[in-house]
Amino acid sequence: MTLYLEDLTPGMRFVSASWEVTADEIRRFAREYDPQPFHLDESAARASVFGGLAASGWHVAAMAMKQMVQGPVRFAGGMIGAGCEVEWVSPTRPGDILRVESEVLEARPSRSRPDRGIVTLYSQTLSQKNEIRMTQTARLMVFRRPA
Amino acid sequence: MTLYLEDLTPGMRFVSASWEVTADEIRRFAREYDPQPFHLDESAARASVFGGLAASGWHVAAMAMKQMVQGPVRFAGGMIGAGCEVEWVSPTRPGDILRVESEVLEARPSRSRPDRGIVTLYSQTLSQKNEIRMTQTARLMVFRRPA
Repeated sequence: MTLYLEDLTPGMRFVSASWEVTADEIRRFAREYDPQPFHLDESAARASVFGGLAASGWHVAAMAMKQMVQGPVRFAGGMIGAGCEVEWVSPTRPGDILRVESEVLEARPSRSRPDRGIVTLYSQTLSQKNEIRMTQTARLMVFRRPA
Repeated sequence: MTLYLEDLTPGMRFVSASWEVTADEIRRFAREYDPQPFHLDESAARASVFGGLAASGWHVAAMAMKQMVQGPVRFAGGMIGAGCEVEWVSPTRPGDILRVESEVLEARPSRSRPDRGIVTLYSQTLSQKNEIRMTQTARLMVFRRPA
């Protein structure tokens, strides 16, 4: 289902599919983009502030993005972020089964661009025990329905 | 050089190494984490709001993280983000040669945890023409120097 700006109203909620986080993927992302010991090596991670292997925060954001992009709803023109506030609330671990729950906070037309608007979307990435791993407040560019 | 909380003062600036963004890497990241046409396919991207292949915003954040982690300074305990505000100011393109320039905005001890504090770090990811691609304001956990 493709949603245009007009279709998005405050309070609308979406839930993504669930996916499992693996130690292999944590290390693979970290090797490429965040090569710090607590994302790469179990014993170094145990000695760190994380107390065990933990995913890079940017990896969590990237995994959440994948689910949102492939989620039950699509935004017209795609999911295009102008900005995002991210909080990493608790460490993401191997074996976590995560999902993203999102809620539309605001949808307003652009003043300067009549074909589009900005949607503020609040999302939580949650574990199977409903522990909050990450929260995000994103400003997304969404097209209006063509006349 | 490893920096502790005490070493970080407002106005301190760091500049990362430069790196080149390639179309291959843009597509590779997108296939795994942000599979939208404007990150995957040049002709689909030309027809999109981006007008050409553009990197996923999360890819830009991940690439910037890699440079900051490997940069000239290291923070005691690693670069550990509690949260981050990101703005994607302009599209990141194949051929961009990027660098990250960072400035310490604030460094304050934790009230509850005497061994650590929070550093607010503002960073810009800039192209070779000094176009701003991304800005970030990160809250980082940094350890104090052991007594």
